[in-house]
Amino acid sequence: MTRIAIDAMGGDFAPKVTIEGAVWAAIDYNVPIELVGKEDVIKEELEKIQKKGLKVKAGFHSKRIKVDFSTLDIKITNANEVIEMGEAPGQAIRKKRNSSIVLAVNAVAADSSQAVVAAGSTGAAMASSLFGLGRLPGIERPAIAVTLPTMKKPFIMLDAGANSSCTPEMLYQFAIMGSVFAKNVYGRENPKIGILNIGEEAGKGNDLVQTTYKMLEENKDGLNFIGNVESKEIFYGNCDILICDGFSGNVVLKTIEGCSSMLFKMISQEFKHDLISIIIGLLAKPFMKKMYTRINYEEYGGALLLGVKGITIISHGRSSAYAIKNAIRVAKEAIETDVLKKIAAVYE
Amino acid sequence: MTRIAIDAMGGDFAPKVTIEGAVWAAIDYNVPIELVGKEDVIKEELEKIQKKGLKVKAGFHSKRIKVDFSTLDIKITNANEVIEMGEAPGQAIRKKRNSSIVLAVNAVAADSSQAVVAAGSTGAAMASSLFGLGRLPGIERPAIAVTLPTMKKPFIMLDAGANSSCTPEMLYQFAIMGSVFAKNVYGRENPKIGILNIGEEAGKGNDLVQTTYKMLEENKDGLNFIGNVESKEIFYGNCDILICDGFSGNVVLKTIEGCSSMLFKMISQEFKHDLISIIIGLLAKPFMKKMYTRINYEEYGGALLLGVKGITIISHGRSSAYAIKNAIRVAKEAIETDVLKKIAAVYE
Repeated sequence: MTRIAIDAMGGDFAPKVTIEGAVWAAIDYNVPIELVGKEDVIKEELEKIQKKGLKVKAGFHSKRIKVDFSTLDIKITNANEVIEMGEAPGQAIRKKRNSSIVLAVNAVAADSSQAVVAAGSTGAAMASSLFGLGRLPGIERPAIAVTLPTMKKPFIMLDAGANSSCTPEMLYQFAIMGSVFAKNVYGRENPKIGILNIGEEAGKGNDLVQTTYKMLEENKDGLNFIGNVESKEIFYGNCDILICDGFSGNVVLKTIEGCSSMLFKMISQEFKHDLISIIIGLLAKPFMKKMYTRINYEEYGGALLLGVKGITIISHGRSSAYAIKNAIRVAKEAIETDVLKKIAAVYE
Repeated sequence: MTRIAIDAMGGDFAPKVTIEGAVWAAIDYNVPIELVGKEDVIKEELEKIQKKGLKVKAGFHSKRIKVDFSTLDIKITNANEVIEMGEAPGQAIRKKRNSSIVLAVNAVAADSSQAVVAAGSTGAAMASSLFGLGRLPGIERPAIAVTLPTMKKPFIMLDAGANSSCTPEMLYQFAIMGSVFAKNVYGRENPKIGILNIGEEAGKGNDLVQTTYKMLEENKDGLNFIGNVESKEIFYGNCDILICDGFSGNVVLKTIEGCSSMLFKMISQEFKHDLISIIIGLLAKPFMKKMYTRINYEEYGGALLLGVKGITIISHGRSSAYAIKNAIRVAKEAIETDVLKKIAAVYE
């Protein structure tokens, strides 16, 4: 039986929202949960849910449901400390050995849970995973593999921010890990790998991408390399895996976040000028909502930290309960498809 | 009297659209123009405009106007060769000394024009500007300074793609050039300078941004450094200048382009499901258009290649006549505000 550990204290709206998301996942996916954090706080939140019911809110739809805890398998592991967002990750995980993220990762290391979901400090989640779980054989550094929506099917971008500086060898390993992930979790056959670059031609970009290009062209591991992909092209869904250093990947991720949020705000501003614009805005709203749902990152819930010996799902700091629920789904899929063992098999 | 040279053969829709934009600018801004390209082709296009009138299309508004060429000062300089998009820039400008971009830059070097607008190969425009005009004293490498819209006022990002790899010294110079530009061309007082980074804290990011951070903190040149800015924050308009290496900058630029184009396509798809959605879509269209105009890059026309001894404006390859017209406006403003002399003054 697989169980999924959640850092109940991690995230901008924790512990309330994190715990709600975990309870929701326990109901929807029938998955045992391990809530790691301050026991009294967690119990209090669970009691609130028992009394008032659980607010389930997906995108623009919202309702309150009654929860029968007797049918759910939710375990609490007490953790007295919390690593805050501003703390230096390396120091913090050494100093706060009883923090919720460290103990949540330890639960995976000790196999009491089989995956961990973390919406707190990304640095702390990474550091505790590296320290607590270790790296997969053959992998220098883990990468954050994030799923992004496009006009067609979503694709996986890695690294989305784990490593500010990368070597070509690391990018090559990201290609291998991404390929295994796309095949096994998303069922993509012979998944297409692109390098994020500022031009399509082979000679474009900095030394890192040029050298990586050459390595992938030699194509020793049967990877399906399709060449360079510009960031304006990624939204057409022509590649399954986009590899990049963590600085560029994080820039892409946050540009998408900022740009789409700006556009939605601008649209709603245009629909607020006068009575007619307000009425038309109300008529158009359901269509805008449908579109919003198509690109809503909450649907993808969390990004897998690929390359450590255990499943760590990193969620957005601003995760809603819905996003946490979906992150737990991603964790469950990663467990069921045995993706880590398949990555390790490449290097055997 | 200032004149502006245009590479008439550069751009995906050249020479037609480039020449239309130039004629439009000559009318709107009363500015003398030097069209550089194949003389017979240019003459043919001008004759067409004389016969049929000029189609002026800004965003979604379009009309045809009669042009009285006797009131316009348009000079033609013949150039037999054209540098194509795929060619290696360095080689191409040496081999094709009579290409339209090389001769357009030469016109600036010889002071027959005071600025050049180029919508063809960015690499060729850069290489010919570096070779033909030389660098400003104190500047290692020129940067592409692009203007980007936000919820509030637009900001300048540099480098948007001229240099795939940068040193901290180069980024520091970009800060100086950007600051002079923002002050003089956009009238920003004490313009705020941010570093594009993947976190706000001082220790975030790769070596390049960390070292640049320290250099800017010392603040030797009275620069108004406000720290790191994440790419999701840039759309709030909190900084006037965002500095970054050309790889990251180009990634930001093209992610915005791709992301907004995807969102507009998705919206129009939602308004095509059935009769009701089509009707509501038609009602909502004027509001979407207004919003589109707010973020339309064509309004900004072109990016200044800052750091060479002459004014080179680089326009998008897919520039419309309206974008070319606006690029010529940007060129005119750069001439009138004497921005290059003011940058040079910093290093005297």
